[in-house]
Amino acid sequence: MAGDAADTYTTVGYSSPSFSAGLRPAVLVVDFQLAFTDPRWPLGGLPLIHAARDRTADLLGLARERDVPVAACYTAYGSLADMPFWKVKPVRDDFFYGDPCTEMDPKIHDARNFTYCKNAPSMFFQTPLITFLVKQRVDTVIVTGCTTSGCVRATIVDAFSYGFRVLVPDECCGDAEEGPHRANLADVGRRYADVTTMAEVVKYLEALSS
Amino acid sequence: MAGDAADTYTTVGYSSPSFSAGLRPAVLVVDFQLAFTDPRWPLGGLPLIHAARDRTADLLGLARERDVPVAACYTAYGSLADMPFWKVKPVRDDFFYGDPCTEMDPKIHDARNFTYCKNAPSMFFQTPLITFLVKQRVDTVIVTGCTTSGCVRATIVDAFSYGFRVLVPDECCGDAEEGPHRANLADVGRRYADVTTMAEVVKYLEALSS
Amino acid sequence: MAGDAADTYTTVGYSSPSFSAGLRPAVLVVDFQLAFTDPRWPLGGLPLIHAARDRTADLLGLARERDVPVAACYTAYGSLADMPFWKVKPVRDDFFYGDPCTEMDPKIHDARNFTYCKNAPSMFFQTPLITFLVKQRVDTVIVTGCTTSGCVRATIVDAFSYGFRVLVPDECCGDAEEGPHRANLADVGRRYADVTTMAEVVKYLEALSS
Amino acid sequence: MAGDAADTYTTVGYSSPSFSAGLRPAVLVVDFQLAFTDPRWPLGGLPLIHAARDRTADLLGLARERDVPVAACYTAYGSLADMPFWKVKPVRDDFFYGDPCTEMDPKIHDARNFTYCKNAPSMFFQTPLITFLVKQRVDTVIVTGCTTSGCVRATIVDAFSYGFRVLVPDECCGDAEEGPHRANLADVGRRYADVTTMAEVVKYLEALSS
Repeated sequence: MAGDAADTYTTVGYSSPSFSAGLRPAVLVVDFQLAFTDPRWPLGGLPLIHAARDRTADLLGLARERDVPVAACYTAYGSLADMPFWKVKPVRDDFFYGDPCTEMDPKIHDARNFTYCKNAPSMFFQTPLITFLVKQRVDTVIVTGCTTSGCVRATIVDAFSYGFRVLVPDECCGDAEEGPHRANLADVGRRYADVTTMAEVVKYLEALSS
Repeated sequence: MAGDAADTYTTVGYSSPSFSAGLRPAVLVVDFQLAFTDPRWPLGGLPLIHAARDRTADLLGLARERDVPVAACYTAYGSLADMPFWKVKPVRDDFFYGDPCTEMDPKIHDARNFTYCKNAPSMFFQTPLITFLVKQRVDTVIVTGCTTSGCVRATIVDAFSYGFRVLVPDECCGDAEEGPHRANLADVGRRYADVTTMAEVVKYLEALSS
Repeated sequence: MAGDAADTYTTVGYSSPSFSAGLRPAVLVVDFQLAFTDPRWPLGGLPLIHAARDRTADLLGLARERDVPVAACYTAYGSLADMPFWKVKPVRDDFFYGDPCTEMDPKIHDARNFTYCKNAPSMFFQTPLITFLVKQRVDTVIVTGCTTSGCVRATIVDAFSYGFRVLVPDECCGDAEEGPHRANLADVGRRYADVTTMAEVVKYLEALSS
Repeated sequence: MAGDAADTYTTVGYSSPSFSAGLRPAVLVVDFQLAFTDPRWPLGGLPLIHAARDRTADLLGLARERDVPVAACYTAYGSLADMPFWKVKPVRDDFFYGDPCTEMDPKIHDARNFTYCKNAPSMFFQTPLITFLVKQRVDTVIVTGCTTSGCVRATIVDAFSYGFRVLVPDECCGDAEEGPHRANLADVGRRYADVTTMAEVVKYLEALSS
């Protein structure tokens, strides 16, 4: 497996000890919009994504209770003119401002959180997220959402690039298949983030606020 | 295999027909600096990266002959204070302004091209690249370099996000192991880019300028 | 006056000859939302802004006729948590997602154009605009809107920074007072943009498409 | 004068009470490179800029003593190909990687600080600065440098846009002429920043660390 102690990555210096999480976390939620969680849409019936949505809903309950900032996004466009060259047909067909597929999943949405529209894979790419995080003095982001091998991966890379400590609770990220989910967590765990479990993240949030 | 016609991704609408390449390409070269190409450094002895460097050097010869814009980058920092939380030990140890490991590989470097310093995985993240591409009126980028499962992947995602057409010639991208190389090309080929061969890219560049 | 031939700026090398406009223009429209054009709101009764809105509406008529891409924006936030530290009280009071003051002025709005939400002074700062412009292969932007000494100035600086040629038709930009309007046009005309008239811009657009 | 209580801006809601400075400041230093401080170069002999350089050098002495993070930048390009369309002739003639005019002024430079190259007016535009500030957990930036009506203004706007509290000590910013210096401080003081004095900033830094 990619994460084995004996792989080439580890031998040359990847996967070195993790950085401990910081003092001021936020939870980021990638694309839990109806397009990905409601079977009425082509991408909406994938069981690993439904499971991740449910685990993330649990985590958000705790985050809200402890006043941890939460930012959630959905993807939408004005028209094809401002849309990157997506090779995912349902995005080209449906992801437009005001389309029902861009509404947030009701298990995820909460009016107290920051919910905004993004237009690229990463939650950070040309969005208000960095301003929200700087203003809340966040130093650590917990990345959740879908899909691990697409927008979640892109969000992790940008969070790292901006200088945040990045935690990824495995069960809170979903994908169409298990293979790319695992492979992408291995890629980012070697370089950018601490891939961890929901239990560990819960423990971290509880310890912080006590 | 991840790219099979029968996988879940294809079934739900990923991997839809490619966009044809545009009229004004540029070649982007990720991190072919000595740290990755000279065995004096811990990351410098990986054969798949050496092979990709050699194929990219061939491609750059053609690009220069045809006046196709080329941008190449290396990664370096002032100190740990401006460096993201890298889990790759050699980056933390050596990737500093002026360190010999940040010099470009001599097979790649050419004073006529734009060579600049980046500070995150993506060649686009907070760098002058987008200005260079807008000013040259580029609509298509050909992404080469190392590593496929790290900085090349991040660069592809950002190129797509900015609205460029993205071509990835397989042989011009290198990694520590074949598995993550393949898996990442499958991920991006489903969503963001046309993963192709060096022969196809050569044919495209020759057709453009004839 | 700031633009005099004899000023210190000119003597040391500012204000050197302009770059000619390019082949593929777009019109950018900054913040002609009801907050700035409808006297029901505190910022909505300024005559220089009303005049600029009317001139811009005329220009947009021509742009649409000639298939010149148009992007228009308004400013809005989720809550104070994602809002920069504005010292403009009406922004802090009213500029929220869904508030009527964030609706576009009816003389400006057209469903065929790209209209989006921004969250900072510049139309480019963390918004989808750059993707829209790259995808349309734009090389020249014509900046209009309000206020000249605030969001228009910020948009001009970013358009220049991204490598676009920048035209500013004086009559299409409005402000609370004439002094800061003039002073900001002088600042940007020395460095970043060709400050011109609506008549010149009309001539340019007509010449292009004939 | 533009800042008068009775002006139109104040009447409609600009210039509302300032936000107090935060707990974790950094000092930003814009473009005190030889091109602007050494009379050997066309832009290098302006007395208001020399004075601002001297005051900033004093402030940096205090900042270093108190372990306040400092980031300083200079402007340089690879060639005209990656340079925006500057209308300032000396920039087009001399501001290239390795040119002596891009060296930092010796009264400003200190190897313990973060010094980096930028390629646009703003110190933030596509540079590593935001990563440095996030990693140091900065919430307040003190902007110094030259010129007030050019790169300093652009830096203030971006610092505000990212969600930082912004302080501008008047005497630490310099320009070719007094008029545009004053006018730009009035513009930003109405909207984005607290324009203050060096004495107030010194008092703030001393109070923080005692």
